[in-house]
Amino acid sequence: MSTIISVFDTTLRDGTQGEGISLSAEDKIKIALKLDTLGVHYIEGGNPGSNSKDIEFFQRVKQLKLQAKITAFGSTRRKGAIAESDANLNRIIESGVQAATLVGKAWDFHVHTALQTTLEENLAMIYDSFRYLSSKGMETIYDAEHFFDGYKNNSEYAIAALKKAEEAGAAWVVLCDTNGGTLPGEIHEIVSRVREQISTPIGIHTHNDCELAVANTLAAVQAGARQIQGTINGYGERCGNANLCSILPNLQLKLGYSCVTDDQLKLLTGTARYVSEIANVNMPVNQPYVGNAAFAHKGGIHVSAILKDSKTYEHIQPELVGNKQRVLVSELAGQSNLLFKAQELNLNLNMENTETRAMIDRIKELEHQGYQFEGADASLELMLREASGDLEEIFTLESFKLLVEKTKDRSVVSEAIVKVKVHGETVYTAAEGNGPVNALDNALRKALYQFYPQIDDMHLSDYKVRVINEKDATAAKVRVLIESTDFSNSWNTVGVSENVIEASWQALVDSIRYALIGKTRSPQSAEAPRERLGLVNH
Amino acid sequence: MSTIISVFDTTLRDGTQGEGISLSAEDKIKIALKLDTLGVHYIEGGNPGSNSKDIEFFQRVKQLKLQAKITAFGSTRRKGAIAESDANLNRIIESGVQAATLVGKAWDFHVHTALQTTLEENLAMIYDSFRYLSSKGMETIYDAEHFFDGYKNNSEYAIAALKKAEEAGAAWVVLCDTNGGTLPGEIHEIVSRVREQISTPIGIHTHNDCELAVANTLAAVQAGARQIQGTINGYGERCGNANLCSILPNLQLKLGYSCVTDDQLKLLTGTARYVSEIANVNMPVNQPYVGNAAFAHKGGIHVSAILKDSKTYEHIQPELVGNKQRVLVSELAGQSNLLFKAQELNLNLNMENTETRAMIDRIKELEHQGYQFEGADASLELMLREASGDLEEIFTLESFKLLVEKTKDRSVVSEAIVKVKVHGETVYTAAEGNGPVNALDNALRKALYQFYPQIDDMHLSDYKVRVINEKDATAAKVRVLIESTDFSNSWNTVGVSENVIEASWQALVDSIRYALIGKTRSPQSAEAPRERLGLVNH
Repeated sequence: MSTIISVFDTTLRDGTQGEGISLSAEDKIKIALKLDTLGVHYIEGGNPGSNSKDIEFFQRVKQLKLQAKITAFGSTRRKGAIAESDANLNRIIESGVQAATLVGKAWDFHVHTALQTTLEENLAMIYDSFRYLSSKGMETIYDAEHFFDGYKNNSEYAIAALKKAEEAGAAWVVLCDTNGGTLPGEIHEIVSRVREQISTPIGIHTHNDCELAVANTLAAVQAGARQIQGTINGYGERCGNANLCSILPNLQLKLGYSCVTDDQLKLLTGTARYVSEIANVNMPVNQPYVGNAAFAHKGGIHVSAILKDSKTYEHIQPELVGNKQRVLVSELAGQSNLLFKAQELNLNLNMENTETRAMIDRIKELEHQGYQFEGADASLELMLREASGDLEEIFTLESFKLLVEKTKDRSVVSEAIVKVKVHGETVYTAAEGNGPVNALDNALRKALYQFYPQIDDMHLSDYKVRVINEKDATAAKVRVLIESTDFSNSWNTVGVSENVIEASWQALVDSIRYALIGKTRSPQSAEAPRERLGLVNH
Repeated sequence: MSTIISVFDTTLRDGTQGEGISLSAEDKIKIALKLDTLGVHYIEGGNPGSNSKDIEFFQRVKQLKLQAKITAFGSTRRKGAIAESDANLNRIIESGVQAATLVGKAWDFHVHTALQTTLEENLAMIYDSFRYLSSKGMETIYDAEHFFDGYKNNSEYAIAALKKAEEAGAAWVVLCDTNGGTLPGEIHEIVSRVREQISTPIGIHTHNDCELAVANTLAAVQAGARQIQGTINGYGERCGNANLCSILPNLQLKLGYSCVTDDQLKLLTGTARYVSEIANVNMPVNQPYVGNAAFAHKGGIHVSAILKDSKTYEHIQPELVGNKQRVLVSELAGQSNLLFKAQELNLNLNMENTETRAMIDRIKELEHQGYQFEGADASLELMLREASGDLEEIFTLESFKLLVEKTKDRSVVSEAIVKVKVHGETVYTAAEGNGPVNALDNALRKALYQFYPQIDDMHLSDYKVRVINEKDATAAKVRVLIESTDFSNSWNTVGVSENVIEASWQALVDSIRYALIGKTRSPQSAEAPRERLGLVNH
């Protein structure tokens, strides 16, 4: 029976401290659902005392009845104040979470310099805050800020801070390397020493400023820490937090600890890519375990050895973390993956068929341009159905015109004129919108409504644009990702073009085609493929 | 006197195995010059046996008379052949380098599976190859491929391989974790054991597949390794090689080893960014030590502490590695961030002043609407200058019209007509583009060129769009982030509107205003604010 490590995810709180990362309440809900499926034990949702977005998240997440414990974050009470009347502590209680994490100083230098109070008052701030929240029946977690710097500077005081939280009922004391400057050897030694003096279970929270956050987390666990705090893709302030996408497989596949189930570990790559899409941050291709190049082989010698036995140049089987081998000099990998997807959809692709081959090549081309299965399952399904001849034509485009006008001090006006053929009939419509894509969407819906009134059930719920090759941005290829939802489902489509309108049109058309194909199938079979493709958000 | 560690850079050889990395001979020469200034001891230029590009590099680099030793890479002789008649070994000799690195198998499994020969023959291949090159007076380095996997599988054979190279005159035996699957504890233990059996100096070569390449290199050095092999920015196959940009400061600033001089270490950030430019790979903003966000502070509490003493949230002084502190303004931040920013720009914001307070409220309101100034330093600077009355007007918009047309089977056509007033003169221009924003950009440049010919120096280098409130995507507020660059700088601007074109226009206009305001100032003062804002790429 292997030791269980408690996984504490703070992507939604500490992760949002990363430069360029900003998540709406809706984004946070989506990510929380993925994290729960991945099997993390704690999801830190945010700081209810700091902004209203987080309060909305805590209200909405309650209804989801997740397996993971939702935790709220805050600081110990203000100096010279009373815990019971501390606004931020009361916000945490009002948020109705099962667990709360409070950060408190453990470094005497910080107490003097940043907090500008006495060592005694800081200990009282820790004690009062934990006693108050614990008295409300909450599970409380103490993030001992700058613990390692503090221990090196004044070990007695750092330990005293932990003991105060312990006395006041904290369920975990988490040792934080807040500035990310500590080395694995120091971490191992200090965690070992702390264990001799503290009986409360110990957690570890590291930052990547020395590119050692993962190593430091492993060192702490090997020294007896039993909770790991980190974020998906290592998002976080400055150089980021400890990257759970590397820590989980290292602990589970290499060191024999148990964090999530083996099946959940297979969701790691999908989760990492999904979160990077939601955060709209490009994932480095060379990211360990989950990156697109993590198991990609370029060198000719390597490739020939791989074909003999992939163990020759792969430290684990990519499938264990839901990733796959890529051989950059051959397309073998891509094709077998598509065949696998087709099987999932009960489509039989005949590779002898030229249309099929042409479609496969087009899919590979899109993939080559930056298209991602994780990002646009519905578009992939449509292309595969087309490839296998199993796709009805909803409509064909004759032409569209867009007019966008702005005059000084007046806001932009966007109008679209669309000419499409539906069931052999030519339909001509015009509409305006809040933007060109919205105008196109409105005009196209107008044209299709008389044939497919169900189109009213769906709407576009997210729209993202990203430049793929960044040579010359507004003249470069862009990728548009559109998420659509109806009452029960949500699905994602993609468009790629040098023209953002063309790319948006492709994604828009795919989104509508996918929805209406669904409608013409029987309800069950309409749900099925989406379920299998993991398109159902909730 | 601190222990000297020999730094072996393989950016030009193993680094080019990274996905999307391809260097011309000219690129390699440029990078070699930078590496020499940084003070690395060995520069591995490539594999003269594998391609002519590398042969050209070795011919040209000779004339540069660098301090660093130039080394060529190759494999041990072919099985069943004679070293003296091995084409690749002879290419290395012809390349005229002072030192050569030969990779040879140390894992019995690989000898059988990949090489498909006997254990004895592999040992002979090692011995013959090193004897031959050493006999030519070359310094020879043995890269023991898969050493750690080999040692764990058959330690006797792995050691025998090292001994063969040693007998044949190898100056270094480098233990390679080729698949990147080994953990720091194992590395430390195995290197220590090897030291007891091998008297030749030991080197370490790690890969980042477990996100542990840096930790593994440190562990090996602490166990007695005296040469570190790695690449700038950790470029390399799959997840990359050990990142010298993190290893050098860790060894030198944290562990007291001596790799380069303190002055050379200050060149680290510049070198890292220069190499990423030449390789045309975007550097992650959160890259440790050298990234643009490595010392960037976002949280309000952090910022107020930083203003009291940077040691509170920085593990080293950024200047020691040639980087600098940055403060990001965001909804998570307090007023102190804005004050800090204003100080950087030498604008005195008086909080008693009502205009100033109004401006701060406006920035907060804009952030509430979805503006994200942390990703748009230039837009923020423009606002702060406007607030303090220190902003000249470049032009005013009269009107623009955009026409986007698509007809069946023809790609989209985008045309823009722009009417602006510049220095009291009305200018009317039209242009087409790959997309509506590109067309607007082209038309606006046309209008401004006669007044500001310097506008040709700048171009948009990145373009991102995302929906902020996801109620109904194509009718929701969108945020456009634009990155622009000229020959030496890059800056970011933002626009927010329900209309993607309006938002793009705002960001586009800010980007051009920022660039041209710079031009009308004296060169020094034009650079200064960007430098202070951390917008300089290299």
